[in-house]
Amino acid sequence: MFRTELCDLLGIEYPIIQGGMAWVSYYELCSAVSEAGGLGLLAGSRMTGDELRAEIRQVKERTKKPFGINIPLLRPEADDLVRVSIEEGVHAVFTSAGSPKKYTQRMHDAGIKIVHVSPNATLAAKAAAAGVDAVVAEGVEAGGHNGTDEITTMALIPQVVDRVDIPVIAAGGIADSRGFLAALALGAKGVQIGTRFITTHEARVHPNFKKAVLDVGETGTVITGRALGVVRCIRNRLAERLLEAEKRGAGREEVLEIIGPGRSERASIEGDVEEGTVYCGQIAGLIHEIKSAKEVIQEIMEGAEALFRGLEKTAAR
Amino acid sequence: MFRTELCDLLGIEYPIIQGGMAWVSYYELCSAVSEAGGLGLLAGSRMTGDELRAEIRQVKERTKKPFGINIPLLRPEADDLVRVSIEEGVHAVFTSAGSPKKYTQRMHDAGIKIVHVSPNATLAAKAAAAGVDAVVAEGVEAGGHNGTDEITTMALIPQVVDRVDIPVIAAGGIADSRGFLAALALGAKGVQIGTRFITTHEARVHPNFKKAVLDVGETGTVITGRALGVVRCIRNRLAERLLEAEKRGAGREEVLEIIGPGRSERASIEGDVEEGTVYCGQIAGLIHEIKSAKEVIQEIMEGAEALFRGLEKTAAR
Repeated sequence: MFRTELCDLLGIEYPIIQGGMAWVSYYELCSAVSEAGGLGLLAGSRMTGDELRAEIRQVKERTKKPFGINIPLLRPEADDLVRVSIEEGVHAVFTSAGSPKKYTQRMHDAGIKIVHVSPNATLAAKAAAAGVDAVVAEGVEAGGHNGTDEITTMALIPQVVDRVDIPVIAAGGIADSRGFLAALALGAKGVQIGTRFITTHEARVHPNFKKAVLDVGETGTVITGRALGVVRCIRNRLAERLLEAEKRGAGREEVLEIIGPGRSERASIEGDVEEGTVYCGQIAGLIHEIKSAKEVIQEIMEGAEALFRGLEKTAAR
Repeated sequence: MFRTELCDLLGIEYPIIQGGMAWVSYYELCSAVSEAGGLGLLAGSRMTGDELRAEIRQVKERTKKPFGINIPLLRPEADDLVRVSIEEGVHAVFTSAGSPKKYTQRMHDAGIKIVHVSPNATLAAKAAAAGVDAVVAEGVEAGGHNGTDEITTMALIPQVVDRVDIPVIAAGGIADSRGFLAALALGAKGVQIGTRFITTHEARVHPNFKKAVLDVGETGTVITGRALGVVRCIRNRLAERLLEAEKRGAGREEVLEIIGPGRSERASIEGDVEEGTVYCGQIAGLIHEIKSAKEVIQEIMEGAEALFRGLEKTAAR
């Protein structure tokens, strides 16, 4: 059920993409998602080319199914990561934070699908014009880095769908079958899910991080660092300090000084979920249990079918 | 199609509520929406009891169908508005900004349904425990006053649905059939729509206001006044001054001074859409035309049916 044109485009069974999250999305998660019928993504964002190559080879040992790489284009290693992706022959590259134009031809020549992540319809249309095969439209409820316009998924998806002729993948606020079906109703041809995949057995992130996501509740994430860029994370001690600084009008430099280096690693690797940055989507309040990536995908697909049949009854009433 | 239990509860044909918007939702809009099969609401928020009574009587001359009143409970005239609503025998009262507990028994004794507007699941559960008949769960993409937690509709609705046993009405980010169907997929039994009804012939608001909403685009609304409370409005000259003040850490008093009195009237009645507050939802980018309330409702219902049939084909593929 719900086999959309995105499935055909990417050669996958279910239109579910696992977000490429720095410090989380390594070969264990990526291969598990792809093997379960979705599209797993490795997070290229904090890897060297060689590290990415090693991860790709690990994925290939675990699944013959398609998988991809997420590459934020503003990072200095972006060129390297693109080269390795082509050399190793991955199925899809998801680009963000920069223009994909430079890479679309090379990707297509190499038989790789290129998908660009956009926080608004204007950038999505620009990416489509640059030749990408699909766009991810990501709402501000998503964890991690977001667009400065802070458009929500509900408002964003139909506006992007109206602007581009390629498949739109909805991201932000989706963790179960209800979000999945809502995304399709809004006109998306699939979903990209991040936070729900952090709380899987296969996510290679510190157990404290997973527990923090499970415990966060409906109101526990905040936007911090608006002076630098929009980031959604858990409201912990570090976030409170940042919010307090912003409230009294602290500038870019002071905010940078408060953050300092390595906050993401501190949470993700060391497990310090009070003094590290815990990237987390607002939908975390809906997540209560660590499961396998396969269970997550199966529950979404089976749940969406049941939900659809329920709506059908309402419709026929 | 899509006749839900909310329709039974409120005695309406389609599960579409028109938001009770101050300076916008008077008898013309309210009666048109109810006559077209939805539930029209009068905005009690800036009226005296006598003014409300006059509006109610105008509605009754125009439709025999159910309609309701929106009453923000923090306003000094709330008691008066409740009294008039009971005396005049309206069908439903929508409360917000305060606890509905004080009024539930009186409403039920008078045969009036009471629905409470909540920005998070905790307050929704509290309202349900207080005996309301349904809740509106309103995401931060909505125009006007929002909850301080800034939860988006996509993240909010399923979390509220999981917490209460009464019908949930989704609000925020809904302007067409896609948003309507997405809301039902998320578990809502109906929708409350504000911004799309501002841009109707029947909305009694200055033409400049309607034009500003039509022109706003996807990135033209902002949250201002976080020091006082969360308000979504159009990014005009007034909003820019507020944002600038917030950025440099201005406190509550300075922000209040910048706002000064009568900003809402200045936009809604005088039509000054640069120096007045233009309440507007983020979904305005999707709205390109002024229509009648009836057209809006019919397009949503017919569109949702077509959309559903389309998804059915995907499902059967």
